[in-house]
Amino acid sequence: MENIKEKLRQGNKKATARMITMLENNDPEAIKILGELYRYTGKAKVVGITGPPGAGKSTLTDKLVKALRKEDKTVGIIAVDPTSPFSGGSILGDRIRMTDLAVDPGVFIRSMGTRGHLGGLSKATQGAVKALDLYGMDYIFIETVGVGQSEVDIMKTADTVLMVMVPGLGDDIQAIKAGIMEIGDVFAINKADREGAAKTHREIDNMLDFAETDWRPPVHQVVAIQDKGIDELLSAIKDHLAYLDESGEMLHRRIKSSEIEILELIKDRMMQDLLREEEIQEDIKEYSKRVAERKLDPYGASERVLRKTIKKEAEKYENH
Amino acid sequence: MENIKEKLRQGNKKATARMITMLENNDPEAIKILGELYRYTGKAKVVGITGPPGAGKSTLTDKLVKALRKEDKTVGIIAVDPTSPFSGGSILGDRIRMTDLAVDPGVFIRSMGTRGHLGGLSKATQGAVKALDLYGMDYIFIETVGVGQSEVDIMKTADTVLMVMVPGLGDDIQAIKAGIMEIGDVFAINKADREGAAKTHREIDNMLDFAETDWRPPVHQVVAIQDKGIDELLSAIKDHLAYLDESGEMLHRRIKSSEIEILELIKDRMMQDLLREEEIQEDIKEYSKRVAERKLDPYGASERVLRKTIKKEAEKYENH
Repeated sequence: MENIKEKLRQGNKKATARMITMLENNDPEAIKILGELYRYTGKAKVVGITGPPGAGKSTLTDKLVKALRKEDKTVGIIAVDPTSPFSGGSILGDRIRMTDLAVDPGVFIRSMGTRGHLGGLSKATQGAVKALDLYGMDYIFIETVGVGQSEVDIMKTADTVLMVMVPGLGDDIQAIKAGIMEIGDVFAINKADREGAAKTHREIDNMLDFAETDWRPPVHQVVAIQDKGIDELLSAIKDHLAYLDESGEMLHRRIKSSEIEILELIKDRMMQDLLREEEIQEDIKEYSKRVAERKLDPYGASERVLRKTIKKEAEKYENH
Repeated sequence: MENIKEKLRQGNKKATARMITMLENNDPEAIKILGELYRYTGKAKVVGITGPPGAGKSTLTDKLVKALRKEDKTVGIIAVDPTSPFSGGSILGDRIRMTDLAVDPGVFIRSMGTRGHLGGLSKATQGAVKALDLYGMDYIFIETVGVGQSEVDIMKTADTVLMVMVPGLGDDIQAIKAGIMEIGDVFAINKADREGAAKTHREIDNMLDFAETDWRPPVHQVVAIQDKGIDELLSAIKDHLAYLDESGEMLHRRIKSSEIEILELIKDRMMQDLLREEEIQEDIKEYSKRVAERKLDPYGASERVLRKTIKKEAEKYENH
């Protein structure tokens, strides 16, 4: 273990990749090592990229990363795939078509999927950010498909959130926009050569008028596939990062994101500890059956499990 | 409280609406009442409707509900809005433009939003399903925007999941399809008069070829806004519900969904109990700051909180 820890410190790519796999597998050794190396992290700028499916986030990420590479900045990319809770792995492999980036030694690309119902994706993603930070990346991009609760939670751990929209998304756009307005620091309207770009731009602007923050999120029209507007968008991202530093807001954000991480870790650990007990597992199985048959209600069932857990914990504590 | 409980049993609309508000507010009285009335639930057929933004889920729901109303079936609609974790309420109000349905006494429409970081949306949604079940609805539709982890979790609590797709969604469609294939029981390709419908149909079919289940999810092309294909789609949903009953799969699904609900309730309760302690709250605040400053690592911080919690619980237990 000292071996991988030492190699992580030295910026070894294989060790970094192995570390992230360990995090995905919820390996306690990985947590231990990251905890010990944590004080060396915090240097990388973390940029979250989100938006509805079909917005072209992958292409846009690809272009932004290439622009940063021209400035000799190193970049880590974490593609989070929240839509595959069953297959237990990431299915974004084929989305990472950034083949020229994949062979660039200054770029580290990794896709991460959900493992099992009890989450852990957020935890593993935050762990991967630390691993890439240790690896020495100047920037870390976290890209998520989807606009759900877990993805918003992941975005809240980034320094700067780039919200990618497209013209004419249809009925749900109103809902999406209202929900995401608060997490977007910079807005991109991708595929802006399509009809309706100006309208979408106006709509976003109108919504932003209601935001009460010192930073007014800029809105940029881009056509990622044609490399149009990329430099301006990258400047806007850098402006926001500079604003965070100058205003002292960076520390506030990182305190908030640390709080989210600590709470997630606690929740995760409590459920793990609970489900490690075979007796509790059997109780939950039995109760689930009785609840489905309407012989017991789910609230009563959870209450019973909790009472037994506390009793068990108390006994363990006494014998300690 | 007896009052609202009695009224819920009698199918009082106002009491049902109030109950759902209480659930959103995480009112312990609501949980108590639902627990006591739980044995009367389980009669309604629960249909989940999901798919990417812009797929026209609201319109499709509207049409399906109207078709059911022609058969004199009563329907509850829960529109889940996962994208508004900040504003603390639902913003889907304006999406429910089904004004003719809203005044129909045989329909109960409700939109639900996320309150606070620690979730509870899934818990409140499942509570709302029970309330509408008690209210006597024959069918309950749960509609979610988004394709994230939390939405998938909510869908897993439905009897039948209708997955709504549209032609030509773009880059992310591959990811969405692979992720959702496992939760879709019936597929609708909405806006099927658009270019690419046949291609999307073929792609979904190809993916379904890999599924190893007794039920082969049917794929239907519809144009919701023109009322095209709605009756056939409704038949497919009913076929799946009948299959669940005949195969005994219904009980299995409900055992599984009960398990998910019990686990969610436990997780939720544990975090609530934890954060009720002022001392713990202060610790978390202090640790978050130190973690952001890299003076403490998040894993160590969560460990400390957990150790103190167990100690506190043990003391409480002894004094009990």
